[in-house]
Formats: sequence, structure tokens, C-alpha cells
Amino acid sequence: VKIEIRKSILRSNDEKAQKNARLFESEKLAVINVMGSPGAGKTSFILKLAKVLGKKYTFGVIEADVASRIDADKISSAGIPVFQINTDGGCHLEASMIPSALKKLEIKGPGFLLIENIGNLICPSEFDLGEALRIVISSVPEGHDKPAKYPGIFSSADAVILNKIDLLPYLDFDREFFVNSIKAVNDEVPVFEVSSKTGRSIRLFSSWVEKISKKWIER
Amino acid sequence: VKIEIRKSILRSNDEKAQKNARLFESEKLAVINVMGSPGAGKTSFILKLAKVLGKKYTFGVIEADVASRIDADKISSAGIPVFQINTDGGCHLEASMIPSALKKLEIKGPGFLLIENIGNLICPSEFDLGEALRIVISSVPEGHDKPAKYPGIFSSADAVILNKIDLLPYLDFDREFFVNSIKAVNDEVPVFEVSSKTGRSIRLFSSWVEKISKKWIER
Repeated sequence: VKIEIRKSILRSNDEKAQKNARLFESEKLAVINVMGSPGAGKTSFILKLAKVLGKKYTFGVIEADVASRIDADKISSAGIPVFQINTDGGCHLEASMIPSALKKLEIKGPGFLLIENIGNLICPSEFDLGEALRIVISSVPEGHDKPAKYPGIFSSADAVILNKIDLLPYLDFDREFFVNSIKAVNDEVPVFEVSSKTGRSIRLFSSWVEKISKKWIER
Repeated sequence: VKIEIRKSILRSNDEKAQKNARLFESEKLAVINVMGSPGAGKTSFILKLAKVLGKKYTFGVIEADVASRIDADKISSAGIPVFQINTDGGCHLEASMIPSALKKLEIKGPGFLLIENIGNLICPSEFDLGEALRIVISSVPEGHDKPAKYPGIFSSADAVILNKIDLLPYLDFDREFFVNSIKAVNDEVPVFEVSSKTGRSIRLFSSWVEKISKKWIER
């Protein structure tokens, strides 16, 4: 019974995700599903990205957390349209939660909608939101073994961000092991080493995103 | 249906947890359920604890990960009895997984059994394993907002460890905000600021654990 219910939940989510994908396309929004551990720096990274991409395009954010409005307040203080979803114990976003949140955001394409998922390396990966891209943010202090321990979420990523690269001198982090473990489950995915603190490689990633999102934003 | 199934899963888990608790008591094992984000430093902390407590008592470890034997290999290299559980996508341990793992460990009390749960701040908190104590390990690079964002897991902790305190100089971390957010949901829980790298306050925590575990280990 448990497995059957699970399958039917995922099937119903997939249908809603396909509807979302059509909605995003018609709104000319390149939607990025941002996943990562608690404290990987998802919000800070989104803020840095907004500074670059927000100059040329619409840029909106949906924030998801179990509790609190901390992240939405940060985004909002930077003058970026944001809507906060609280899952109240739920460990991932589902496709059904997105359309009403987007409506409340009141943004118009062409541009980007960043969806910051719940801080979790397991649950969010199975739930498609209809996004154009999914990125996984990992961070140096979490250690190089995360892709080996949580292969599922890395296997479906369109890009991997290794954040907090400025902390490398203070930690034992084996970049080769990190990258090789990712390549083992996701052969061609690009890995960007960035620092949301110093700004390192934020422009590099922004250019990559802009290029790969043409289908959505330039029509 | 979803909620009903969920309730029945939790009820059945609680019954098995009670059985586990009786088993642990009869084996004179103080069992500690160690929870925290991916990369909070759970394994390194357990290794440091083993060096202190392992001198006086039996000390065994059950490691849980979605995939890989990385953590079990680390523990095993230190000469500590360990059994690895792979949940293959599951985001938490359940009480039913413990008795067979304990059997394979072949340890004898009086002493400690550390169970390192899946790296996740949401799912593990609802599943009682029959443990004597549950501790949540948070770390400085994760940021001071974790207790405010994931109140559930902090509310049921018997102790909170703030790990990687040696990285404090390189990060913006508001200790007062961190502690106050914990106290808001768990008034009397002790918070230990430790570094598994430098060893800071490991002895302080070990003494606390030894004292509070007397019911299990001294009979």
C-alpha cells in the first residue's frame, strides 16, 4: 500500500509539473529549481545572481521553508519580488504549490523565476516542479563526500554549484573526489566553484544560465 | 488517505521503538540518536566522542546513509565496531531497522551505541528509535538561522551541538540568535559549542553524556 500511494503521488505531481512547464513557457519565465542542504547558501547565491540577471530581466523568487520568513525577508530587502511558502514539516515542494505562488508574485517575463526548495538533499529530487533547470548547491564546509552519499539529487542536476569556495584554505576538501563522484552519476553536468561572499564566478554562472535559458526568455 | 497512512506508520514505529528501548535497557546500552544536516560533522563528532567514552565503556556505532559506506569505513578504521545501513533513498531511520543492525554489531554493555541518522533536518525527527538521548548537531557554516527554520528537530533534542566553532572567525554567525531560536522551542536544552577538529569541549560534552546516561550504563 505504501509503495502504491507513493507512486500515485509522484504520478499526480508529474502531471501538475507538466502543466506548470507550459505555464512557465507561456509567461516567458525560465524557472530554476534550487536545491541543497540546509545552510549550503542557497539564498545568498540567489541574491548574488539577482544582482547580475536582474539588471537585464525580470527576476522573481519563491522561497520555501519548513518555518519562518527569514529568507523571504532577505530577498525582499534587496527589492526583489518574493513569495514565501511554509511547508510546516513537509520536506519538499510539490508542483501543485507553485501556480498560486507565482500568481501572487505578479511578475511578467521575459525573465527568471528562482524557486528555492526546502533545505534537504533527498526529498526534493523526486518532485518535478516543471522547472527549466535544476541546480544543486553544495558547499565546501559540508565536505567532499556529499555527492557520493546523496547520488540521487546530483544525478538529476543541470548544474552543480560548489559554494563557499573562499573557505577552502580552512578545510580539508578534496575537489577531485567531489567532482568525480558527481561525474559518476551525471557525466556531463558542469560544476561551478563560486563564493556568494566574495562574488567569485557568479558572472560566469550567470552567463551560462542566460545562454541555456534562451528557449524561455528570448521568444 | 495520505494522512491516515502516515499516522499508522508513525504508530507502528512508536511500538517498535518501545520494544527497542526495552532491548537497549536490558543490554545496558545508552543509545544516542545523532541527527543533523548533511555535512554538519556528525561522523567526526562521533569519532572524537569515541576516543573519550571508548576508554571506559563499550562504544558501537550504527551509520545510516542513503548510499555509500564512507562513514562506516571512517569509524571502522578507528577500530570501533560499526554497522552501515543504506536506506537507498529513504530520508530517515525507522525503529524496525535497528535490532538486526545491533545484532550484527555484536557489542555488549555497559556502554554507548551511537546511531548516526540520515543527514536531514526534517524527516528523522518524527521517528523515535527507542533511544535514550537524541542530539542535534548543527554547524557554524550552516548559519545561525537553522533552529528558526527547522524548529521541529530542535524541539525534541536532549542536547544541541554547535560544531565547527573553530570557523567562527571566518563567518558571520550570530550565536545569540542561534541559542534564542532554540530556547524558543526547547527551553532547557543545553547547547555545547564544540570543534571536532580541534577537540574543543568534547570532554565537557562527554562528561555530560556520561552523567545523564547513568540509568543505562550503571546498573
